[in-house]
Amino acid sequence: MAPLHRCVPALRQIKAANFAFNRAAIARTAPRAVFAGQRRFESSKNEPTTSATSEPHQPHPDTGAKGPEAPSRKIKYTSESYPDLKRDPKFAELTTEHVQWFKDLLGNESAILDGVSKDASEDIEPYNADWMRKYKGHTKLVVKPGSTDEVSKILKYCNDNMLAVVPQGGNTGLVGGSVPVFDEIVVNLARMNQIRSFDDVSGILVADAGVILEVADNYLAERKHIFPLDLGAKGSCQIGGNVATNAGGLRLLRYGSMHGNVLGIEAVLPDGTIVNNLSKLRKDNTGYDIKQLFIGAEGTIGMITAISILCPQRSQATNVAYFGLESFEKVQQAFSEAKGMLGEILSAFELMDGRSQNLYKSASGNSLPLESEHPFYCLIETSGSNSDHDQEKLESFLEHVMGEEIVSDGVVAQDQTQFKELWGCREGVPEHLGHWGGVYKYDLSIPINEMYSLVEETRARMEKAGLIGDTDDYPVVDVVGYGHMGDANLHLNVPTRRYDKAVEKELEPFVYEWVAKRSGSISAEHGLGIAKAPFIGYSRDETMIKLMRQIKDLYDPKGIMNPYKFLSG
Amino acid sequence: MAPLHRCVPALRQIKAANFAFNRAAIARTAPRAVFAGQRRFESSKNEPTTSATSEPHQPHPDTGAKGPEAPSRKIKYTSESYPDLKRDPKFAELTTEHVQWFKDLLGNESAILDGVSKDASEDIEPYNADWMRKYKGHTKLVVKPGSTDEVSKILKYCNDNMLAVVPQGGNTGLVGGSVPVFDEIVVNLARMNQIRSFDDVSGILVADAGVILEVADNYLAERKHIFPLDLGAKGSCQIGGNVATNAGGLRLLRYGSMHGNVLGIEAVLPDGTIVNNLSKLRKDNTGYDIKQLFIGAEGTIGMITAISILCPQRSQATNVAYFGLESFEKVQQAFSEAKGMLGEILSAFELMDGRSQNLYKSASGNSLPLESEHPFYCLIETSGSNSDHDQEKLESFLEHVMGEEIVSDGVVAQDQTQFKELWGCREGVPEHLGHWGGVYKYDLSIPINEMYSLVEETRARMEKAGLIGDTDDYPVVDVVGYGHMGDANLHLNVPTRRYDKAVEKELEPFVYEWVAKRSGSISAEHGLGIAKAPFIGYSRDETMIKLMRQIKDLYDPKGIMNPYKFLSG
Repeated sequence: MAPLHRCVPALRQIKAANFAFNRAAIARTAPRAVFAGQRRFESSKNEPTTSATSEPHQPHPDTGAKGPEAPSRKIKYTSESYPDLKRDPKFAELTTEHVQWFKDLLGNESAILDGVSKDASEDIEPYNADWMRKYKGHTKLVVKPGSTDEVSKILKYCNDNMLAVVPQGGNTGLVGGSVPVFDEIVVNLARMNQIRSFDDVSGILVADAGVILEVADNYLAERKHIFPLDLGAKGSCQIGGNVATNAGGLRLLRYGSMHGNVLGIEAVLPDGTIVNNLSKLRKDNTGYDIKQLFIGAEGTIGMITAISILCPQRSQATNVAYFGLESFEKVQQAFSEAKGMLGEILSAFELMDGRSQNLYKSASGNSLPLESEHPFYCLIETSGSNSDHDQEKLESFLEHVMGEEIVSDGVVAQDQTQFKELWGCREGVPEHLGHWGGVYKYDLSIPINEMYSLVEETRARMEKAGLIGDTDDYPVVDVVGYGHMGDANLHLNVPTRRYDKAVEKELEPFVYEWVAKRSGSISAEHGLGIAKAPFIGYSRDETMIKLMRQIKDLYDPKGIMNPYKFLSG
Repeated sequence: MAPLHRCVPALRQIKAANFAFNRAAIARTAPRAVFAGQRRFESSKNEPTTSATSEPHQPHPDTGAKGPEAPSRKIKYTSESYPDLKRDPKFAELTTEHVQWFKDLLGNESAILDGVSKDASEDIEPYNADWMRKYKGHTKLVVKPGSTDEVSKILKYCNDNMLAVVPQGGNTGLVGGSVPVFDEIVVNLARMNQIRSFDDVSGILVADAGVILEVADNYLAERKHIFPLDLGAKGSCQIGGNVATNAGGLRLLRYGSMHGNVLGIEAVLPDGTIVNNLSKLRKDNTGYDIKQLFIGAEGTIGMITAISILCPQRSQATNVAYFGLESFEKVQQAFSEAKGMLGEILSAFELMDGRSQNLYKSASGNSLPLESEHPFYCLIETSGSNSDHDQEKLESFLEHVMGEEIVSDGVVAQDQTQFKELWGCREGVPEHLGHWGGVYKYDLSIPINEMYSLVEETRARMEKAGLIGDTDDYPVVDVVGYGHMGDANLHLNVPTRRYDKAVEKELEPFVYEWVAKRSGSISAEHGLGIAKAPFIGYSRDETMIKLMRQIKDLYDPKGIMNPYKFLSG
């Protein structure tokens, strides 16, 4: 293996150094956190499957700090985990007549999974439960429309008959938003999987909501373009779901959010109205931008059936560097310098604290890229149209930040294998933090200058409470922070050896209150779903929540769309 | 003056050539189209002033094809130009009691322009009329709140008393949206002009709505950042107005739209509710993205009082090239190649057809950068963090497109003066097309591959109708197209010698129908205001218009906000 390119401080030079990797390469696009013993459903093309995401390992605090359950173990029903949630009696119970109506509409068995008129519970389970095996509903009907018109007829029928509905894409969410709680009908969009058009001059892609993200990205790659979103679940998640949940992921720093990139949406309202806002225009100032409401609405005001999205030209060159820093102030300085000197080619700036890297090292058995230890590490990725230029910029940047003693030490990947292995030090963290038992995890947006203080304060709380230590006497292994520095998106993680109510008491509501005090977000990129719904008040004031409820009431007056979630907390 | 760097075909080399400029430099940031004889109001700091914009020259088709009126000539009242518009009797007439209430609230004379209790019509005129001198209202009261709380009290009072309101920023709009039609009270935000905070690590700026765009950009420039929007009116327009009108401008190709860049909004609803959505977070998935409704709402559902916006690092290097091409297909090819080879540094790709350049040459007396004539010209700008790299990329690109015979000839600016002069060939077009009398102008979004066909078809119509020719016998001088190729934003322009109803008959509804057939937008970046309100049906279907009206009714049930415009057509 080629040695990593190493930056030596003081010399202001980039010299090759002999640095050996002793661990297996972790493919960047492979599922990032499939655990031993974790059940994976057998998947056929376009069926929803379990899948890994960039932040996959989230044993629910309420259900104990154990790792993912073994396949043999039954998934607990959400209705049991959340005993305060009651089925809303306003919704009708599913009858054989209802099922017959759906069968008449969809016309073939493959479009229906029916647990009412025959025993199909085995087939239905993957649609009832999320991939984390954390949430499970009681649905007896899954329907798979093949067209927008069918979606329209289905929603209108459900609305007229007071049948609750859960829109479902790839079912890869992290907050339980895409599975039923009780007997809501699952409307799964897997069959709507066609790319409708692509214009390689404008870069505008129009595609059905059920197209798998990776399929879309591969289609674009062949045409020298890139989908402006990437995340670990790309092999399973659907682009409609990505838009419905306003997915963030790995390319946001460079390409921006769905709100900027999505140019149009085709959606169906609960009353069956088809909203044709599938614009292929980059600019259109003719009225309110209604489609924006559907981005991040998590299927609560309608179902997205197609999207139009602006896709950038694909970069021809990528580089990655990994370095150590002595303080969070220096991390911020390095980020500022990276924005200035790498500017237009900076495509990722990820943060990992020293503790997260040490735990990764100890759990994975891998060594770290740098021999020296540092309280902070960062991973920088560049992508651009000219490899030589990008390397030169990256080297100038590294020389500068090392000369100025902002960065203490660093390495640059010299080939694709090293590229993936450096990324592994960031992407392997969530998986390996589960090594000791379970992890309390928070996905937070915090103003960048205060971002790391939360980790320090949380650790101090655990120390003061005598909960943290190196032996089995202590429930808490460590308190670590990592995440998307470029987006001020912190993943606060508390790996534990066992479930302990005292730990939970130290964490909540402390973390939410801390974030609220700084006007942060209690859900940066994962959404509300069922998991975060009760906590929205920490991020939104009463006026905002009132305005949101107005929107919900306006579009879904009967409340059939994805009930018990989002604003219902 | 240094010669332009010239690309010579076949040689695949960039060689310096002796190319002389014989015209005065046109400063890029200077007002782009101030006409001789056009009245400019004397401005004091933060008072609204007339100002030029990137597309300023729009004699109303209804009012004849003459150039801008002389200062001595009175501006026609909008109520006369649009005789079908009637004052809505549901609105109260302003009384001295009302005026007293405002005086008691705002506490000083400087915050009020009052034409009711004293004769202040002279002072009020700049607030009643737009800078183009095309729209004029009858307001008798202008109020200038100094805080969000004052805006809240004002709107609540107006809502309670059925007083109609026009929110006003820099009053630089092109569709009459920021001036009253009848006696609506003008709420001008010029006094709310403070920058609230800037974080140079995250690049997030929080500022009052009344901050002048150029002031914000200069503030950011000192901190190595850039406002992600630029337009000709930057010296007068306010950032709140930019967001309220979803301004497009010159940096959209590179930095994207307001919907992606605006992170938060503080707004006041008609009932006085203060919406505090002034997030400083790049990621926040906690509910519907309500703020998006205010972006481009043109002040019809509330008043934006502050914004939070993501500002990129400022590029250290800029380059500009100008070249000739033989067909619109080649223009599209060049755009694709530019996206691929210039990728992350491409910051503008502007289109000018040969006819627009010839008219520019003939009206301005300037020669064009290329000696040879071509049916199409493009202007490319790059901006990046490394000047050498950018120049190398640009030269590789030019060698490639010339070697492949996509581009026939081209020049690259070698210094700042040439940079500005090449831009002048694009930016001077709108001004100089008015040379023969007046111009019929359309600001359209069209799928990029069909973008130029409209110009050809419109010209064919004029030829067939015998309206176009080189002598005074013909009303139409030419039919030309130019615009933001990168955004598929075409400015269709028909310079004329005189007003002729036959010309208008050939243009409308033909142009709108042509655009509607291709699902284009009849207002790409200028908005609806009063000018485009009647034509929204060409770009939006009934369902979309219904959904928009629902939003209007939800937020402004009494309809006091900016009436007679937007959706009222």
